[in-house]
Amino acid sequence: MFKAIITVKLRPSILDPEGKAIEHALQSLDFKTLSGVRIGKLVEMQVDAADRAAAEAVVIEACRQLLANQVMEDYTYELHEA
Amino acid sequence: MFKAIITVKLRPSILDPEGKAIEHALQSLDFKTLSGVRIGKLVEMQVDAADRAAAEAVVIEACRQLLANQVMEDYTYELHEA
Repeated sequence: MFKAIITVKLRPSILDPEGKAIEHALQSLDFKTLSGVRIGKLVEMQVDAADRAAAEAVVIEACRQLLANQVMEDYTYELHEA
Repeated sequence: MFKAIITVKLRPSILDPEGKAIEHALQSLDFKTLSGVRIGKLVEMQVDAADRAAAEAVVIEACRQLLANQVMEDYTYELHEA
């Protein structure tokens, strides 16, 4: 059993309106030293696999098919034995 | 200048309907070995601070005031010198 921690982020060239909104809100709250806010998704899940290679294959396939829109998003993942 | 990577996750006791929806979708796509899906937010930002302690203080304050709802969510952060 593995625990997968997946992050899905908009590619750097894609505008991030949610990040911009949060940045404006932070500025309004007087956090003048914070900038360049970008928002992403974090997905955690249990992977029932015999070994790390099998777990990795399933996670990559899940990212491709469902979790990430590869036109606009990049994903990274970590696997921890659980 | 520091780069802050903040994760905001629902507390384990709080139901995560978005995670459940993604889990159901994964099951429909025949990913039978994936379970316990939980969704969180990832916030990346630049912090203009003289030292790590100052950057940390700003990030924690931003989490408390805006980024995390501490009744329902936990946050963690990493700081990298940039």
